[in-house]
Amino acid sequence: MFKSKLALAVALGLGMSSPLWAAEGGIEARLAALEARVQAAEARAEAAESRASQAEIKASAASEDAQVANTRSQKVDEKTAGAQGFEFHGYARSGLLVNGNGNGGRGGPYITPAGSVGGAVGRLGNEDDTYMEANLLKTQTFEDGSWARYKLMLADGVETSNDWTASDSSLNTRQVFAEIGNLASFDGAFKNAVLWAGKRFDRDNFDIHWLDSDVVFLAGTGGGVYDVQLADSWKANFSLYGRDYGDISASGLSDIESYILTMNNRFGNWQWMVNGLSANDNEQRINDGGKGSEAADKGAHTLVAYHADSFFGINPGFSKAAILYGHGLGAELKGLGSDSELLPDADAVRVAVFGATDLNPRWRFAPALLAEQSQDRYVKGDEYQWLTLNTRVAQVLSQNVELVYEAAWQYMDLDPKGYKGRQAVNGNFTKLTFAPTFKAQTAGFFERPELRVFATWMDWSSELDSYASDDAMGQSNFTAGGEWNFGVQMETWF
Amino acid sequence: MFKSKLALAVALGLGMSSPLWAAEGGIEARLAALEARVQAAEARAEAAESRASQAEIKASAASEDAQVANTRSQKVDEKTAGAQGFEFHGYARSGLLVNGNGNGGRGGPYITPAGSVGGAVGRLGNEDDTYMEANLLKTQTFEDGSWARYKLMLADGVETSNDWTASDSSLNTRQVFAEIGNLASFDGAFKNAVLWAGKRFDRDNFDIHWLDSDVVFLAGTGGGVYDVQLADSWKANFSLYGRDYGDISASGLSDIESYILTMNNRFGNWQWMVNGLSANDNEQRINDGGKGSEAADKGAHTLVAYHADSFFGINPGFSKAAILYGHGLGAELKGLGSDSELLPDADAVRVAVFGATDLNPRWRFAPALLAEQSQDRYVKGDEYQWLTLNTRVAQVLSQNVELVYEAAWQYMDLDPKGYKGRQAVNGNFTKLTFAPTFKAQTAGFFERPELRVFATWMDWSSELDSYASDDAMGQSNFTAGGEWNFGVQMETWF
Amino acid sequence: MFKSKLALAVALGLGMSSPLWAAEGGIEARLAALEARVQAAEARAEAAESRASQAEIKASAASEDAQVANTRSQKVDEKTAGAQGFEFHGYARSGLLVNGNGNGGRGGPYITPAGSVGGAVGRLGNEDDTYMEANLLKTQTFEDGSWARYKLMLADGVETSNDWTASDSSLNTRQVFAEIGNLASFDGAFKNAVLWAGKRFDRDNFDIHWLDSDVVFLAGTGGGVYDVQLADSWKANFSLYGRDYGDISASGLSDIESYILTMNNRFGNWQWMVNGLSANDNEQRINDGGKGSEAADKGAHTLVAYHADSFFGINPGFSKAAILYGHGLGAELKGLGSDSELLPDADAVRVAVFGATDLNPRWRFAPALLAEQSQDRYVKGDEYQWLTLNTRVAQVLSQNVELVYEAAWQYMDLDPKGYKGRQAVNGNFTKLTFAPTFKAQTAGFFERPELRVFATWMDWSSELDSYASDDAMGQSNFTAGGEWNFGVQMETWF
Repeated sequence: MFKSKLALAVALGLGMSSPLWAAEGGIEARLAALEARVQAAEARAEAAESRASQAEIKASAASEDAQVANTRSQKVDEKTAGAQGFEFHGYARSGLLVNGNGNGGRGGPYITPAGSVGGAVGRLGNEDDTYMEANLLKTQTFEDGSWARYKLMLADGVETSNDWTASDSSLNTRQVFAEIGNLASFDGAFKNAVLWAGKRFDRDNFDIHWLDSDVVFLAGTGGGVYDVQLADSWKANFSLYGRDYGDISASGLSDIESYILTMNNRFGNWQWMVNGLSANDNEQRINDGGKGSEAADKGAHTLVAYHADSFFGINPGFSKAAILYGHGLGAELKGLGSDSELLPDADAVRVAVFGATDLNPRWRFAPALLAEQSQDRYVKGDEYQWLTLNTRVAQVLSQNVELVYEAAWQYMDLDPKGYKGRQAVNGNFTKLTFAPTFKAQTAGFFERPELRVFATWMDWSSELDSYASDDAMGQSNFTAGGEWNFGVQMETWF
Repeated sequence: MFKSKLALAVALGLGMSSPLWAAEGGIEARLAALEARVQAAEARAEAAESRASQAEIKASAASEDAQVANTRSQKVDEKTAGAQGFEFHGYARSGLLVNGNGNGGRGGPYITPAGSVGGAVGRLGNEDDTYMEANLLKTQTFEDGSWARYKLMLADGVETSNDWTASDSSLNTRQVFAEIGNLASFDGAFKNAVLWAGKRFDRDNFDIHWLDSDVVFLAGTGGGVYDVQLADSWKANFSLYGRDYGDISASGLSDIESYILTMNNRFGNWQWMVNGLSANDNEQRINDGGKGSEAADKGAHTLVAYHADSFFGINPGFSKAAILYGHGLGAELKGLGSDSELLPDADAVRVAVFGATDLNPRWRFAPALLAEQSQDRYVKGDEYQWLTLNTRVAQVLSQNVELVYEAAWQYMDLDPKGYKGRQAVNGNFTKLTFAPTFKAQTAGFFERPELRVFATWMDWSSELDSYASDDAMGQSNFTAGGEWNFGVQMETWF
Repeated sequence: MFKSKLALAVALGLGMSSPLWAAEGGIEARLAALEARVQAAEARAEAAESRASQAEIKASAASEDAQVANTRSQKVDEKTAGAQGFEFHGYARSGLLVNGNGNGGRGGPYITPAGSVGGAVGRLGNEDDTYMEANLLKTQTFEDGSWARYKLMLADGVETSNDWTASDSSLNTRQVFAEIGNLASFDGAFKNAVLWAGKRFDRDNFDIHWLDSDVVFLAGTGGGVYDVQLADSWKANFSLYGRDYGDISASGLSDIESYILTMNNRFGNWQWMVNGLSANDNEQRINDGGKGSEAADKGAHTLVAYHADSFFGINPGFSKAAILYGHGLGAELKGLGSDSELLPDADAVRVAVFGATDLNPRWRFAPALLAEQSQDRYVKGDEYQWLTLNTRVAQVLSQNVELVYEAAWQYMDLDPKGYKGRQAVNGNFTKLTFAPTFKAQTAGFFERPELRVFATWMDWSSELDSYASDDAMGQSNFTAGGEWNFGVQMETWF
C-alpha cells in the first residue's frame, strides 16, 4: 500500500507544471504526519520503557519476595526438621467431685453393682479422677509411597487432686506399635493392607463416649493386618493379640498368657467380628482365692454391628447398633480377653444401641441403650442382668456456652451366688446431671475442650447397698435415699 | 545539536532565499531531525523491548522461585501438620554433689531446721537431685479468634545418679488442664477473660528462683477464670482448687479433701490475693500419730505484693516485695492448702523482698530476703522464726563463661514444743558457693542452660544438729564445723 | 533494500539530473524510509509495550505467588513456632514370645548362665518384652552460631502384654542433659568442643545391635567436654560420671556413690578409652549378703577399638573390633561402674569383633564375636569364660519382605565358687531363628521399623540347667533338649 501510494503521488506530482510545490505540499504533510507519528512512537517507546521499568521493578520485588519466601520456608523447613511427621494427640479429663457435705464425692460410670460386670451408667458429672492419654506419633513417608507410622501412648489416672502425685501415679506405656502401609510390593487383596505389630488398642474399637464404655475394646500385644480386600465390598482384619493373666503357681514362675485370634469384617455399614481365645493352663486357676470354680482356658466371642451415617435414618448425625455374644473366656464382651476368671460355661449376650443428632441448631440429643444378660460367669449358676438407658442433651446458648443435661436409669438383677462374698440384689439406679459448659466453640456434640460446672443427683434402690461391702454403695456414708455431687471438670481430646 | 548543525550547513551552502530552497532546507532539517528522532525512538523501543524481555525473564524466574517457595511451604505445612500448635517446654536440673571425702554430699535448699517450715537458704551448689518437668502443649485457634490450649506436665525427681531409675522413679502427671480464651460471645468484664479447668499450677504463682522457693504456690485440681476486668485498672482471677489430705479413717474409705477459694487482684503493679480454705472433717485428724493436737478444718490466707519493673527504682532489672499472712489451714503461706496438720489457731506472717539487676555489663546482682514468723502451727504454743539473706552474683568473663557466687545466711529460732520429737534450737547457718559457669550465651541472669562446676562451703551453729534425728544435720557424719561440697550441674529451662 | 528500490524507481521515473528533483527525490526517499522506520519503531514500541505488559502481569502474578508463599510460610512459621528446634526420637520393641505349649515363652539375649556375666547370645526371636525409649529434644541456635541442646529420655520396659501396665511400669527418666557447642569465645583446642552436664548415656558408646549388647556403655550423672582437639588427628573427651551403689549401712543414711573419670581418644579410626573408678567406702560392702568377700573401692578400665568404614576391608559396609581390660571395679567391662560387688583383684578381658555388609542386593550378612575371660570377680578364685558367635543374615525378597535368619552359638565355662549358690558349669548353647520380616523399605540392614513373625529353636548342654535355681534354665519346665519359641514382634528406631 505504501509503495503504491508513493508511486501514485510521484506520478501525479510529475505530470503537471508546479510539481515542486505540489511535491512540497505533500512532503510537508507527510513530514507533519511523520513528526506526529514519531512523537507518538517516542511517547509509546517512552511508555514502554517506563512500563518495562515498572515491570522490572515489580519483577525484582517479586523476585525478592520469592527469595524471602524461599528463605523463610527453607528456614522453617530446617527449624521444624525434627518435628516433621510428628504428631501430639491426647485425651484428658480432670476435675473435682464434691458431695453435699463438702467432702470428696463418690462417683464413676461403674458405681453401681452392675458396674462390677460392665454396667456403665453415664459419665457426666460423675467422674472424680484426673486421667490423661498422651500420644506421640511419628510418620515417615517414602518415595515409593509406602509409609511407616509409630505410636507411643503414655497414660495415667489418679484420684487425688494434688499436683505432685508420684506415690499415686499410674503412669504407664499403654500403647507402642508400628504400622506400615501402601507397600509397593503388595498387590491384590493386600494392595491397601496395613501391617502392624506391638502393643495397641485395636484400630476398630468403638465406644459410647457418654457412657465411658467401649462397645468392644480389644487391646494387648501382638500383630496383624488391616484392610485385606476379600471382595469388592468386603474388607477384613486379621490379628493375634496376647494378654497376661498373671501368675497362679506357687513357684511364681509360670505366667498364664491369653491369646486372642481375631477376624474383623466390614461389609459396607455392617461389621462382623469373630474372636477365638485361648489361655493354656488357665483351667488351673481356682476362683475366689482357691475356694471356687475352675476357670476356662478358652473362649469364643462375636459381634455384629451396624454403623449408620445418620441418626437412625430420621435425622443427620450418626447411630450404631451392636449385638455381642461370648462363651467361656469370651464372655467378657467388652474387654476382650481381659477377665481370667470366667468359667468354661460362661455365656453372655450384650446389646448396644446409641447415636447422636442435632435436633436443631440449639439442641443436640444423644440417647444410648446398653444391656447385658450373662450367666455361669464366676460360679456355676450365677446370673447377671442389667440394662442402662442414658441420654445426654446439649442446649446451645451461645458460641461459647451450652447447658448440658444427662439422665440415666439402670435396672439390674444380679445373682452372684456368693462370688467374692457378694449378695444377690435387684433394683434400679437413677442419675440426673445438669452441667453448664464452656467451650471455645459450641460447634458440635463432640467438640472439645469442655469446661464444666455441674450438679448431679443420684438415687437407687436400697437393696443395692448390700451387694458388696467393698464397693461405693457398700459404704455406710453412701446409701440409697438421694446423693448430690457438685463439681468442675475439664474434658478434652485432640 | 544535530538538527542545528544541519540547518547551518543548509543555510551556508545555499546562500539564497528561494522559497523552494527554503522549503527544501526546512524539510531537510525536519527530515534530518525526524531521522534522528526515529533513530532515537527505535533505540528506545529496542531498549524497552530488551528491558521488557529482561523483566519477563526476571518475572518468570520470580514466578518459579515463588512456585518453589510455595511448594516447599506447602510441603512443610503438610509435614508439620501434626506439630502445629504444639509446644515443648521444660525445666531440668541434674548433677553431682560430692562431699570432701568423695562420698555423696548432703544438700538441698531446705537443708536447715528452718527448712522444715519453709526456710530456704539458696540453691546454687546445693542440689543433689535430677529433677525435670516436661510440658507438652497444644493450642488450637478458631476462625472467630477464640482459642483453646491444653497443657500436660510430666515431672520426675530422683536422688540417684544412675541412668535406669525405675525403682526410684517419681514420674507423675503434675499438670493437665485446658484453657479457653478470646471467647466471641463474652463481653464486658469478661471480654478478655480466660476460663480454665483441670489440674494445674496457678498461672500467677511467682518465685525467688535462686532460693528455689515460690513466694506463693497455689496448685491442685479445679477451675476458674482469669483476667476479669472489674474496673479500668483492676483485673481479678477467681478459682476453686481442690487438694487431697489423705485418709485418716480406720476404714480407709473417707479421704479428706481441702478446697481453696481464691481471688487474685491486680491493680497496676500491685497484687492482692485473698484465699479461703475449707477441709471438712479434717478436725478429726490428730497430729503426731494421734498423740497431738486436733488439726484445723478451715483457714484464711492473704498476700499483698508489689511487682516493680526496675530494681527497687534505682537500676534497670526487676524487683518484688510481698507480705503474706495466714491463719488456720492458711498458715502454710507458700504452698497454699498443702499442710493438713496446721492447728485452728495457727498464725503465720512471711515477708519476701528480692530482685535482680545488671550493675554493669560484667556484673549481675540478685539479692533476696525471705523471713517468717509463725506460731501455734502443730502444737499449741510452738513458735518458729527464721530469716534468710541470700545474694547471687554473676561475673561475666566472656560470651560463654561466668563466675557465679552465692552467699547465704539464715537465722532461726525454732520451738516445736516436741512436735515429731523435735528439739527447740536457735542459731544460724552460712553457705558460700563459687561456681564457674558455662553458657551458650552469657546474655542475662536468667539465660539458660547453665553448665556449672562448683565448690560450696557451709557452716552452722552446732545447736542446729540437735533439732531432729531424721534430718541432714541430725546425722553423725554431717555436723557443725564446716562442710565442703563439690560438684557439676546442668540447669535449664525453655 | 526498500530504500534503494525506491531511489531507483524515482531515478528511472524522472529521467533527469535537476538538483531539485534530486533533492526532492532524496527527500522523498528519506521520507519514505522514515515512514517505514517510524512504522517499524511504532511496531516495536507496541511490541515492547505489550511485552512490558506481559512482564507486568507475570511480575504481578509472581508477586502474588510470592506473597502467597510468604504468607503461608509465615503462617507455618507461626503455627510451628512451638515445635521449632524440637525433635522426637525413639527406640521401641514389642511383641509376643510363645513356647511350643502355647504358654509365654522364656527368652532374652542374656538367657544363658554366661548372661549373668554379660554373655549375650543374640536377640532375634528371643525377646519377650515391650521396651521403649522416647527422646524429646530441643535445640536453640544463637546469632553468634553457638547452640544449646536439651535431651530428655523417658524409658520403660515391661514383660506383660496387657495394655494397662501401671503396676508393672518401669517408666523412668533415663537421660536428661544439656549440651552447648560452637562457643564464640572458645578457641584453640576447644574451638569445636562440646560441653555437657546432666544425666546421660555417653555420646561415644557403641553396640552390637543384633546381640543387644553394647561394647561399652558408660552412663550416669555428671559433666564433661567432647572433641578437644589435642593434635591434628587427635580428639579427646574428658568426663566425670557419678553412679549410685545404694545404701549398705544399718542406719540407711549413707549411700555409696561411684565416680568414673573418663578420657576417650580418637585418632582417625582408632579409639582409646581410659577410665578410673572410685567408690569411697564401698570396701565396707560384703558380698553375698554379708557372708562373702569385701568389694573393691576403686578400679581401672581401658578399651582400644578400631572403627572401620568397610566390612573388614573386603566389602562395603562397616566393621569394628575392640579389646577391653578392667581391674577392680573396672572389671565390669561393658556397663562401666555398674557393678558394685566386684573384688579389688577382679580382672577381666573382653574381645568384640563384628560388622555388617551387603553381600549382594539380595543378601545382607552381619557376623559378630564377643568373648570374655574374667576371674576373682565376686569370690576369690572364681573364673568365668564365655565366647559367643552370632550371625544375622537377611534375604531380601521384595521391597517389603525379607527373610531374616540368626544363628548363635555360645561356649561357656563358669566357676562361680559358690557365689549366690551358683554351681560351676561348662557347656554350650545354640539358637537358630527364622523370621519373615515386613518393612516399609527393605533398604538396608538397619532400616526400621521391622514387623516380624518368627520361630526360634534353642538347645544347650544339660549341665547348664544346674548353674542357678533362679534363672530361666534353672526352671523345671525349661531344660536342655530343645525348646521352640514362636512369636511376632515390632522393632523400630527413628
